[in-house]
Amino acid sequence: MRAITIPESGGPEVLSWDEVPDPVPGEGEVLVEVVASAVNRADIVQRQGFYDPPPGASPYPGLECSGRIAELGTGVSGWAVGDEVCALLSGGGYAEKVVVPAGQLLPVPKGVDLKHAAALPEVACTVWSNVFMIAHLRPGETVLVHGGSSGIGTMAIQLAKAVGAKVAVTAGTKEKLDHCAELGADILINYREQDFVAELKAATDGAGADVILDNMGAKYLDRNVRALAVNGRLAIIGLQGGTKGELNIGALLGKRAAISATTLRARPLSEKTAIVAAVREHVWPLLDGGHIRPVVDRELPMSDAAAAHRVVEESGHVGKVLLVVE
Amino acid sequence: MRAITIPESGGPEVLSWDEVPDPVPGEGEVLVEVVASAVNRADIVQRQGFYDPPPGASPYPGLECSGRIAELGTGVSGWAVGDEVCALLSGGGYAEKVVVPAGQLLPVPKGVDLKHAAALPEVACTVWSNVFMIAHLRPGETVLVHGGSSGIGTMAIQLAKAVGAKVAVTAGTKEKLDHCAELGADILINYREQDFVAELKAATDGAGADVILDNMGAKYLDRNVRALAVNGRLAIIGLQGGTKGELNIGALLGKRAAISATTLRARPLSEKTAIVAAVREHVWPLLDGGHIRPVVDRELPMSDAAAAHRVVEESGHVGKVLLVVE
Repeated sequence: MRAITIPESGGPEVLSWDEVPDPVPGEGEVLVEVVASAVNRADIVQRQGFYDPPPGASPYPGLECSGRIAELGTGVSGWAVGDEVCALLSGGGYAEKVVVPAGQLLPVPKGVDLKHAAALPEVACTVWSNVFMIAHLRPGETVLVHGGSSGIGTMAIQLAKAVGAKVAVTAGTKEKLDHCAELGADILINYREQDFVAELKAATDGAGADVILDNMGAKYLDRNVRALAVNGRLAIIGLQGGTKGELNIGALLGKRAAISATTLRARPLSEKTAIVAAVREHVWPLLDGGHIRPVVDRELPMSDAAAAHRVVEESGHVGKVLLVVE
Repeated sequence: MRAITIPESGGPEVLSWDEVPDPVPGEGEVLVEVVASAVNRADIVQRQGFYDPPPGASPYPGLECSGRIAELGTGVSGWAVGDEVCALLSGGGYAEKVVVPAGQLLPVPKGVDLKHAAALPEVACTVWSNVFMIAHLRPGETVLVHGGSSGIGTMAIQLAKAVGAKVAVTAGTKEKLDHCAELGADILINYREQDFVAELKAATDGAGADVILDNMGAKYLDRNVRALAVNGRLAIIGLQGGTKGELNIGALLGKRAAISATTLRARPLSEKTAIVAAVREHVWPLLDGGHIRPVVDRELPMSDAAAAHRVVEESGHVGKVLLVVE
């Protein structure tokens, strides 16, 4: 098969569409013939040489895919060869074939194009596990989603609205904020021109956010704590703004607030399986019913993954950038 | 009645045993004739002028007491005049009488002296709400309790052991660590002589603590994050080591860990009522059965609250220092 390899760390140009050995499914795994994958920021950091795949994972990038089951390993039940699926991966999605633990498979939701289903696993699992399983967003509460027009952001807006929460977003352009509004966002904050703490407070009668989904880390830490409501929960899922920041524990204590920080990729199989099962139970019915949808910015040939990485690195997209096997 | 008043902020000597008006129970409240109260660090900070009572609370110090119900306000059921009780207070425990919302009352556990019951409400509610309701300590997990010989610490050790957890403690002297060991602590760390991160790692095959109960805040923040296990939870309940510290979010994210920070006193009545109900359900049977017990360092006359504050400020105690009405 062919796969995107990373012969040496560097810019998008190092990505190479190469002939490599086919993977072989082990016990409890299936082989998926990939139709599409999608770009995640972790892929870019991996390409740059700063995010090695976890032990046992494929060396090729790609944390999600859609496709058809081509072969079942031993001990797999509930799935059949030919099933159209999408999957959460530990790596290897940028390829014509990939091996997946059966617990990380999801059916393609009704009414969703098989290619577009590749846009779902990472964002659905990341948002559900953080905003709902860890931060317990409840109906009537306010959630602040940083990077509202990103893949994660577009899913977070839709899921939060679906459960009856009020949604605030930050983004860097009016066009991106308009997309967020179309998805249901109630409070639109241009982080280049506005102070998100002041804007959020003004829009919530001074209360702040019950939950914040943050991809910036250190750069936003102090402002996020200030933006939290009493009993607020800050869920950090990325460190695009640095890794170390001053924490005002007194402010956190005064609000009885909490901070969590997680990545999905590093979780062991058992935790990923539990998250995928929860996503299938809670998120998939919303997709099947057409209440929420994958947001796809564009489709590019997988062989030109470099072009897709450039789009994401320049933040020129809304939603997910797909890589399609041709 | 008489109560300890704080005519001006300052050292222990400002505490004054004065004649003051009796409090009057409102709807849903009871009047308790106080037998004993206990010293909490928050009382000292209040005396120093840095911790104003929350709105509506008594101006006198004292966050817990034991005694007998002297009068029922309207709308109180399940309690009768003469009942021996202990109670979680928003203030006013350093007095001959205090008004308490009925939801913050607890019966005196079987086999526990009425005076000693005053040592229970703050530590039971603080430990249960933080270690169990927020941090979800589970059987087989390891908890690190800073200040293991404090009132909070002695309750945390006993409760954690009662649920089948492994308990590590820090304290500043061999004598205090010996007391912790008698209560069941498994891993004893002298913070004056040892690096608690290294000692904890060594005692857990490198895994670290699943839960940390911390009263130091900034001073221990970085070390606490380093001491956490994967999926670890740091519960901060005090800021004795300062309010602002550098947080290594990258380390937190790598461990999928979480930090919470709370105080009990500032919680609204509804949250206190829920915590007291959970404590009555989960902690009281352990007290009734003699599996855990209040740890009382000494009893001093309430009129000499100054002496009790000096003991606590010098950390010369193990467990709780009681103030007894004579």
